[in-house]
Amino acid sequence: MILETIQSPQDLKALSHSDLHTLVDEAREALIQKISHHGGHSGPNLGVVEMTVALHRVFDSPTDKLIFDVSHQTYVHKMLTGRAYSFLDVSQYDAVSGYTNPCESEHDLFTVGHTSTSLSLANGVAKARDLKGETYNVIALIGDGSLSGGLAYEGLNNIVELGSNTIVIVNDNDQSIAENHGGIYQNLRALRQSKGRAPNNFFKAMGFEYHYLDNGNDLDALLSLFESLKDCDHPVLCHIHTLKGKGLDFAEKNRESYHAGGPFDRETGAYVTLGQPQETYQSLITQALMAKMAHDPEVVVVNAGTPSILFNKTQREQIGKQFVDVGIAEGHAATMVAGLAKNGVKPIWAVFSTFMQRSYDSISHDIALNNLPATILVFGASINGMKDQSHLGIFDIPFLASIPNLIYLAPTNKEETFAMLEWSCDQNDHPVAIRVPVGEVVETNKQTNFDICHPYDVIEGDTVMVIGVGNFYALAQAIVKGLKEDHKINATLVNPKVLSGVPLSYLNNISPSHQIVVTLEDGVCDGGYGQRVSSALGHTSIKVFNYGLSAAFHDRYDVNTLLEDHGLSVSKISAKILDELKGSH
Amino acid sequence: MILETIQSPQDLKALSHSDLHTLVDEAREALIQKISHHGGHSGPNLGVVEMTVALHRVFDSPTDKLIFDVSHQTYVHKMLTGRAYSFLDVSQYDAVSGYTNPCESEHDLFTVGHTSTSLSLANGVAKARDLKGETYNVIALIGDGSLSGGLAYEGLNNIVELGSNTIVIVNDNDQSIAENHGGIYQNLRALRQSKGRAPNNFFKAMGFEYHYLDNGNDLDALLSLFESLKDCDHPVLCHIHTLKGKGLDFAEKNRESYHAGGPFDRETGAYVTLGQPQETYQSLITQALMAKMAHDPEVVVVNAGTPSILFNKTQREQIGKQFVDVGIAEGHAATMVAGLAKNGVKPIWAVFSTFMQRSYDSISHDIALNNLPATILVFGASINGMKDQSHLGIFDIPFLASIPNLIYLAPTNKEETFAMLEWSCDQNDHPVAIRVPVGEVVETNKQTNFDICHPYDVIEGDTVMVIGVGNFYALAQAIVKGLKEDHKINATLVNPKVLSGVPLSYLNNISPSHQIVVTLEDGVCDGGYGQRVSSALGHTSIKVFNYGLSAAFHDRYDVNTLLEDHGLSVSKISAKILDELKGSH
Repeated sequence: MILETIQSPQDLKALSHSDLHTLVDEAREALIQKISHHGGHSGPNLGVVEMTVALHRVFDSPTDKLIFDVSHQTYVHKMLTGRAYSFLDVSQYDAVSGYTNPCESEHDLFTVGHTSTSLSLANGVAKARDLKGETYNVIALIGDGSLSGGLAYEGLNNIVELGSNTIVIVNDNDQSIAENHGGIYQNLRALRQSKGRAPNNFFKAMGFEYHYLDNGNDLDALLSLFESLKDCDHPVLCHIHTLKGKGLDFAEKNRESYHAGGPFDRETGAYVTLGQPQETYQSLITQALMAKMAHDPEVVVVNAGTPSILFNKTQREQIGKQFVDVGIAEGHAATMVAGLAKNGVKPIWAVFSTFMQRSYDSISHDIALNNLPATILVFGASINGMKDQSHLGIFDIPFLASIPNLIYLAPTNKEETFAMLEWSCDQNDHPVAIRVPVGEVVETNKQTNFDICHPYDVIEGDTVMVIGVGNFYALAQAIVKGLKEDHKINATLVNPKVLSGVPLSYLNNISPSHQIVVTLEDGVCDGGYGQRVSSALGHTSIKVFNYGLSAAFHDRYDVNTLLEDHGLSVSKISAKILDELKGSH
Repeated sequence: MILETIQSPQDLKALSHSDLHTLVDEAREALIQKISHHGGHSGPNLGVVEMTVALHRVFDSPTDKLIFDVSHQTYVHKMLTGRAYSFLDVSQYDAVSGYTNPCESEHDLFTVGHTSTSLSLANGVAKARDLKGETYNVIALIGDGSLSGGLAYEGLNNIVELGSNTIVIVNDNDQSIAENHGGIYQNLRALRQSKGRAPNNFFKAMGFEYHYLDNGNDLDALLSLFESLKDCDHPVLCHIHTLKGKGLDFAEKNRESYHAGGPFDRETGAYVTLGQPQETYQSLITQALMAKMAHDPEVVVVNAGTPSILFNKTQREQIGKQFVDVGIAEGHAATMVAGLAKNGVKPIWAVFSTFMQRSYDSISHDIALNNLPATILVFGASINGMKDQSHLGIFDIPFLASIPNLIYLAPTNKEETFAMLEWSCDQNDHPVAIRVPVGEVVETNKQTNFDICHPYDVIEGDTVMVIGVGNFYALAQAIVKGLKEDHKINATLVNPKVLSGVPLSYLNNISPSHQIVVTLEDGVCDGGYGQRVSSALGHTSIKVFNYGLSAAFHDRYDVNTLLEDHGLSVSKISAKILDELKGSH
């Protein structure tokens, strides 16, 4: 097997032409083996097997710099840079991350995971090269989907300005995660259909020397193109048409389903289901929003490039004009939502916590400064969200809860979630964000209303108060239960519900018997909710302990270990409380 | 005077053709009168007098929706929508804001101030119109400078996708605040030079019906163009070439100086100087960076569209390739800085606090996640920074200080500022942001070093501790001095220097005699530094009081009043401390 002999890209240089073709076949086979057993980003990787082999044959990484957008398409790159073992050896499948990672290899320049950054990164790398008087190639790969993000445009704009060697490769498989939307995609289509000769050319208009390759899965054509551009002294752009999912019939045909996912049957494509619960917060919200939109033509759901967060293709077709996918453009999503709300309809923006941070200014300056009644549904905001360091959903409380006017809500169960959603859509006073619970659906089966004038729920007790935010309310309940049952301490239990402010009047009047307040939040402590409670109680002699996560880029962690490391367990927190009570007597 | 008779845009409809021309002259004269006496955005407004009159003659605001980018060019719009008094009556000059403001008029849709948002806002407004089955024109104005921001591109992309009436007006005066940079500007130039007929056309490539008008200061041509496009049923884009500063010879010739500024002599253009101190933190940093770059060819200063924050045109020419202006593209600036640092040079990014929030994800995901040694110089981060609600510099501690890996420093004087800058440039372990002091330069004339291992400075005392962050260290000093001199209390004074973490080991071991800790920060309290101190001291019986600003979009405030409203005075804080000490005895 040739792939097993490849320890570094240098090993590709010596291969015969026919061995290179064999390597492509072996890499694709290894890829299919791993993704069908292990899951991962199928479509994006299957589409660039030839391109990746050609890049490493022609260019000289790590002297030449390869920079990947999102870097979810780097599985073959990893195979060719000393990490084939993690694709060939089942026991090593988890040994490498799903994204580039400088800790793994000198051939991975950056830790990446969000979209549209590769061109700006390349622009910096190339500028540094020029300042140092060095000469080598800087190559940035970006998918057509990532071109919907404004940062990609800013990158193109500045690469042309720099004017020196930067080779931009647009990997156009005519598909984002789902289908593409927007004017740029009409142009990409026209360019594909005309084999790069359409009269209007976005890339030429931006100032690029433009090269089109129609068969982007033809190794020889790729080699020849890259050879012709290597060491050029100015920016060039290669628009390369590839086939997403190439090599798996069902993945080629159903490009959305096989963008990424869990293990599947490599013959039929059927995903291996792990007996997941049928009902999730997401599925419940999907149903509720579809009913809501059917009932009210002025409700509109906005999403930025991850439509399957709520609606599959069939559902999107059914919804029609009341669903908008703006591309991977969170800034636009938020600012558009401001425009929608201003002009009197009811926008609901569905977004993952990790991607929402790409729109901080749009949320603050457009939605919040204008105090417009929009609803933001924040998904994956939890230690139980995505666990890659580039996709964490644990920073949203600090960054959202300090934005004026915006009300950030943390429901703790199904009934609260929907009560808050209803309330948000019915009011016209403020933008509202709802931190959608993560994990198993908690049902109370109680009639539940929400009103910002009566935000928090309290089960009164004494001595100790446990404040459980959102997903961690269950932990607070368990602690209070344990204190009562095992230690006869009748602790107060608080569900604060609103994160963008603490219930000051309540905290100022809590029973003086309270000696200890514990706050629990499913996110980082620094700048978070608990610290606001500490501040509010600063004038009292009550001791306050804030529990949550440390502000760090935790990576591919085991949830239980991370919780344990942060003392986030019933036993540890209860022990701490008992210890403090003992000390104070 | 015709202008005085205009109470609403409806009044323009009845004017004769010659009266309309007179109105243009009167509006320009009123503009020159006010800006020469009062200051403001001269160039942008002088360039669009004819365009604004034409827009209000042809379209029917507020039924038709006019949406302005940044909205710094809306002075004539304000004159024509019932607010002429604020340009004609000297005593009313401050009665309207320098930006659109829905509180002032129904003709102002949004509060705006940041760049590149108008197209996305318009896209939302138009989508809402379509959902409601209404028909009217949605018109978005955007300057050429604002086209450097990726959000503008996202807006264009989605306006084409929506496909219904949206009239985009690109006001091209061939100038951002300073000169433009990037590939898009080569295209704009080619389009201007060819009168819109250049073979490569960015806007056509994006899918727009494109109209070019070369003399954008010709009222009749503008009227005719707008008439022809009114009520169109699809997106159109008008590329209109205007003259920035039109009507003032010196402003036409020196477009950077007269973009915005204070009062000037309308004959000579000489700015009225108010006897400002020669030396500012900015001027000191300018000198230091120029010396640093001359000494080290691998130091590079990056800026996003506000180069005069540090360097005027002559200085930029002198610096050459070691200064990069990426356009109004803060996201790109931050991500490019990551690329620069990764490839071994020393990037220093100079940015205003208010605009830095446009790059939250790039700072977190590209610079901080990759833990790259870049330096961010944060300007205007203070209650004494810009005072418009859309330009506040008071939110940066909450949003920056929770980003892992990044070290956020708050110097309190000149010597610390430069010690921190030196330290940051010399280290390779972390990204560092420095909150450049705002206000009069404080000099200690003491040899000062900075080292992250010995971050904070303490003057030990007892009973009371006052922690003064950055600009508010002086306030802390004054409080401590007053307590000593007037009340014989020997308070501890702390300069924490590092905002991205509290000195835990120090706080855990402070003298048990301390009963009260007061924190002072020049920014919002929620999510800020003081709350971290409250949290860290939560396990003690020490009382902690956090002083700073409330999380609100304070607007055109008087600094002293706002300080007073937040209890931020020596007398109020000292009284609070004394009161608490009394209470505890």
